[in-house]
Amino acid sequence: MSQTIEFYFDFSSPYGYLGAQRIQAVADQHQRSVDWHPILLGAIFKVSGQAPLTTFPLKGDYAIMDFQRSAREVELPYSHPKQFPIATVAAARTIWWAKEHEDSTINQKTGDLVQAFFKAYYVDGKNLSDASVVVETASKLGIDQSNLEAALQDDVVKTRLKTAVNDAIEKKVFGSPMMIVDGESFWGNDRIEQLDRWLTRGGW
Amino acid sequence: MSQTIEFYFDFSSPYGYLGAQRIQAVADQHQRSVDWHPILLGAIFKVSGQAPLTTFPLKGDYAIMDFQRSAREVELPYSHPKQFPIATVAAARTIWWAKEHEDSTINQKTGDLVQAFFKAYYVDGKNLSDASVVVETASKLGIDQSNLEAALQDDVVKTRLKTAVNDAIEKKVFGSPMMIVDGESFWGNDRIEQLDRWLTRGGW
Repeated sequence: MSQTIEFYFDFSSPYGYLGAQRIQAVADQHQRSVDWHPILLGAIFKVSGQAPLTTFPLKGDYAIMDFQRSAREVELPYSHPKQFPIATVAAARTIWWAKEHEDSTINQKTGDLVQAFFKAYYVDGKNLSDASVVVETASKLGIDQSNLEAALQDDVVKTRLKTAVNDAIEKKVFGSPMMIVDGESFWGNDRIEQLDRWLTRGGW
Repeated sequence: MSQTIEFYFDFSSPYGYLGAQRIQAVADQHQRSVDWHPILLGAIFKVSGQAPLTTFPLKGDYAIMDFQRSAREVELPYSHPKQFPIATVAAARTIWWAKEHEDSTINQKTGDLVQAFFKAYYVDGKNLSDASVVVETASKLGIDQSNLEAALQDDVVKTRLKTAVNDAIEKKVFGSPMMIVDGESFWGNDRIEQLDRWLTRGGW
């Protein structure tokens, strides 16, 4: 049995941000590790027939309010970004590059990079769709700028993200965050408590 | 300030069923009453550009699983209906007819009718889209069959439901259940705990 919690998310997803901040504590409590899976919701929405929450009449205003209220509920800072939603290709590529890097000093920074990218976008108001913001944020964690810049243009890294998106679709991931534990799927920041209870009970 | 919790729902909504079973306890705790607002999601989806959860690729199977898991989580029986989703016009009309009836013995049965209709559909496996199932279920609560049969064909009752759907759209109701308390909206069975805390805090 896998001892990870697979955490699928798009950096442009507010509930992904809130969930990412909270999942590590749940994982720690159950002696699990978090396996970060950044994906691109835009590509997935094409398959699943969906669209960003804020593009729907009636639902859009509620969504923006609920992002903020949900953040307050879990006592996390949240400032709704001026550019929203955004393309998160550079940030997502960076995570896949770091996560599978042969250099363990880079590899071990994967989780910190996830949190730093989310913070740049949802707390510090930076436009994470801009690759230079991604590189600058990563460099503050000790990632070499020119190394990362090269990686972001590397076909192997580009293909890795595409494969990751296809793998997610294979696993019926349709939203963010989506968590898979021992084959069981949980969708949404608001399902983390259920996931926690599910692990506590050891299933049903 | 209104002392009600407005509870908007479609009888064909599993989360509406789960929420309806739980909202009264929250209302009681905060000395509120529940104001039942049955609506037709089909009409609202036309305005909001949405569609039933189970019609989406990838998302559909998860939705059916999550209905059942969510029911287990709150310890309520749930049997996913063979016919799903269904048209709930007859059930919704009955609630509006009862809720605003001048005869208080009918009027006071509104909440019980809501629960009985949900139970017929989600526990007893009856096809609630069938007006005869609605009338039969209501009759077990002492509602006169021929009275209700006549009401379901009454233009005043038909118009009342249409007005209720339009009022809901005015208030930006786009899903089920959606609860409005003192102007604050909460969408989903999974927001009832937040609503409860919101009332406890007296707002933000």
